Amino acid sequence: MDAQDFVPLPTTTAQAGDTPEKIELGKKLFFDPRLSATGTVSCNSCHNLMEGGDDGRPTSMGVDGLTGPRNAPTVWNSVFQSSQFWDGRAATLAEQAMGPMVADVEMGMTGHDQVIRRIKNIPDYADEFERIFGQTGAITIENAVDAIAAFERTLITPDSDFDRFLAGDQSAISAKAIRGMELFESIGCTECHSGPALNNWTGPDDVAEFVDFPRDADSPLVDRYDLVSDLGRQQVTGDESDAHLFKVPVLRNITLTAPYMHNGKVPSLAEACRVMASTQLDEDLADEEVSELIAFLSTLEGRFPEITLPRLPSRSGESVIDPIPTPDNEPHQN
Amino acid sequence: MDAQDFVPLPTTTAQAGDTPEKIELGKKLFFDPRLSATGTVSCNSCHNLMEGGDDGRPTSMGVDGLTGPRNAPTVWNSVFQSSQFWDGRAATLAEQAMGPMVADVEMGMTGHDQVIRRIKNIPDYADEFERIFGQTGAITIENAVDAIAAFERTLITPDSDFDRFLAGDQSAISAKAIRGMELFESIGCTECHSGPALNNWTGPDDVAEFVDFPRDADSPLVDRYDLVSDLGRQQVTGDESDAHLFKVPVLRNITLTAPYMHNGKVPSLAEACRVMASTQLDEDLADEEVSELIAFLSTLEGRFPEITLPRLPSRSGESVIDPIPTPDNEPHQN
Repeated sequence: MDAQDFVPLPTTTAQAGDTPEKIELGKKLFFDPRLSATGTVSCNSCHNLMEGGDDGRPTSMGVDGLTGPRNAPTVWNSVFQSSQFWDGRAATLAEQAMGPMVADVEMGMTGHDQVIRRIKNIPDYADEFERIFGQTGAITIENAVDAIAAFERTLITPDSDFDRFLAGDQSAISAKAIRGMELFESIGCTECHSGPALNNWTGPDDVAEFVDFPRDADSPLVDRYDLVSDLGRQQVTGDESDAHLFKVPVLRNITLTAPYMHNGKVPSLAEACRVMASTQLDEDLADEEVSELIAFLSTLEGRFPEITLPRLPSRSGESVIDPIPTPDNEPHQN
Repeated sequence: MDAQDFVPLPTTTAQAGDTPEKIELGKKLFFDPRLSATGTVSCNSCHNLMEGGDDGRPTSMGVDGLTGPRNAPTVWNSVFQSSQFWDGRAATLAEQAMGPMVADVEMGMTGHDQVIRRIKNIPDYADEFERIFGQTGAITIENAVDAIAAFERTLITPDSDFDRFLAGDQSAISAKAIRGMELFESIGCTECHSGPALNNWTGPDDVAEFVDFPRDADSPLVDRYDLVSDLGRQQVTGDESDAHLFKVPVLRNITLTAPYMHNGKVPSLAEACRVMASTQLDEDLADEEVSELIAFLSTLEGRFPEITLPRLPSRSGESVIDPIPTPDNEPHQN
């Protein structure tokens, strides 16, 4: 085992200024569906902290039943990345958090000004923003996503079996998992999936890098799972040389986030292993090898912090979400 | 003050058999969006425990952006009712919990057999059901809603300012709130809104009763808020004499559940007070009277139990929700 490849997950990630009060505000905003047009979609809807930090769907569903083209990346350990979104188009957690609020098929707000108006209509939020950001007029989108990012920095899952193994406890993972780990290295998965989050991230000063996926478009699995229609980073830069470049995803807790790939079209982790080996490494895995890899990847399930449900600031007897007409159909009734 | 009208909220409601393990399972099921067709709607989506136990919308939004015709009743203190739903068509919490799962515009499952198949596809649930219900084949819809109901029986909010007042602490509520309480009695609100939950419920042996709403269809507020188009209990019984009969809703935490009425068309608590006084009691309230009533109703906000986010049983590397095609539009991307 190359000590460069495998590194324990850091157990703290707080930045200067991440006060408990700011983290708590960020938690409220993360869970608050009132930040969506319909009042039904929060950050947690697609990045569910009760599960793998995702939604278990091929692609996410936002307001009005609309869906996007990509699989929701996990929010767990997302701080251990040098860019956000599959195509890396946001540099920071805070910048990322601004996107879904105003995306038509996610939270569907018409603009950040609508988000801010909604927050201002909830009196307890105004008090909380002012207490934390120390000025009148503290409710700004920049402050809101700053708080959300502070909360997200707490969403890490250290102390996995693999971390205990790396710390010297040889019995923390099974012999089969060790064979899987060795295979993971020997066939070259660690070319991209190394470091604490197994995504090539090396630390806070890491520079965003992107990799070609699929590297081998002739793999028979490419057509089966429609792996070439998404241009990836080219859609961000407009540069043809960025076609099919994607961020390397975090592999921590990867067992919890089926289905897989940027388009969510690969239904199981076993199949995801075959796809990656075939398209990136020109390897055709035997079933037993897949099983060993999964045994290894299972050791990456970490310890999830206990999270108390926030009490969201109350409506105080006033409707916050704009009334929406009901359809004329004859539906089930409360 | 008539001691018959106002009664402290009970501080415990557990039934025999409500073990901590069953309550925890019920909590998981309550929060699990995988019990809906799209994997996006859980019980908590419309009965949000981070808020007033409702969704803040006029009427709820279920899968695919569909909406129903009625306002989501709060799940907080719902155990203190002798029937469930606005029209009382479910006798128990367990019976209620079966409805939304298979309602087209709520969780949208095709039938309870689909719900059970979904649960069975999540291995940790199988273990948990067997541990709790003590037999193989323990995953049944009856056991699932039994667990959900056990969890819901814990969702009570005692120790409000009003409860402290009733216990003898005269300073627990303001002089204005006391005037509001006296007005609440003197104009006759307590004809229906009395007892611990201020909904005429008297205890576990209470028999479901329903009241005419609006009693006075000539009130100018009836048309404004479309209060006669819903036939209420007549839709359950088919009996014309049940037209416009509704269950009396719980008033505990009523400040937190705007908008109001069975159709959610009344945007504020102030207006809700005017509607009820006008349609039910032929009273035209002065603004100061409305303000006093709200001061009283605000004292009904209780102490919410601290709830830890459940860890939902994992997908273990396998997709649980059936793949759903993405649309051809060009939406926001993760």
